[in-house]
Amino acid sequence: MGFDPLTLKYDVNGLIPAIAQDEDSGEVLMMAWMNANAVLRTLQSGRVTYWSRSRQAFWVKGETSGHVQELVDFRVDCDRDCLLLRVRQTGPACHTNRRSCFYTALRDGGEVEILTPETG
Amino acid sequence: MGFDPLTLKYDVNGLIPAIAQDEDSGEVLMMAWMNANAVLRTLQSGRVTYWSRSRQAFWVKGETSGHVQELVDFRVDCDRDCLLLRVRQTGPACHTNRRSCFYTALRDGGEVEILTPETG
Repeated sequence: MGFDPLTLKYDVNGLIPAIAQDEDSGEVLMMAWMNANAVLRTLQSGRVTYWSRSRQAFWVKGETSGHVQELVDFRVDCDRDCLLLRVRQTGPACHTNRRSCFYTALRDGGEVEILTPETG
Repeated sequence: MGFDPLTLKYDVNGLIPAIAQDEDSGEVLMMAWMNANAVLRTLQSGRVTYWSRSRQAFWVKGETSGHVQELVDFRVDCDRDCLLLRVRQTGPACHTNRRSCFYTALRDGGEVEILTPETG
């Protein structure tokens, strides 16, 4: 692979934000963080792998839930400090069982839930 | 307005990442940062206002370029530490004059530009 993950810009914790977008629907599913090794693992495996800041460990998305993200396209922004991952999402992306983590919207000054948890 | 921007989770610098997505096309345009006051200004004005980390100042998107972002919907993620802004984008969102900042994709192990600068 010619691409070197170290050419990306990481923050003081060595992390870069990664936005996951559903390849088919265009829906923004979630945002999480990667370090250079997580970028490498994602590119090598085709399976989106974040860095869990709370667990301080690799987080192979869907490893326990089965709600995996298959990498379809890997994009870098103009500043090289943010990633956009076009993915094929199996099941819900959010740990609340909703399709997307962005299920809360502000409407008329109050918060409303615009997605309900999936069942089954 | 019933919503209090201080109920969001900010990082050690008092910032929260905000993803701007084109309301019509679903295209992810850019990611930038907001502090609580930028969130407030965005909600009150309907004009997306970030916090510029390099300039340490409010950044009313498009104030000088005219490439404004009109807020259509404001969404919060499950952890309340990331925002998704559905926007109506005038002109290109990227300072390189491309529609989106995510114009670089990895293909066959190399970087390719998938968007060209807009003219006129």
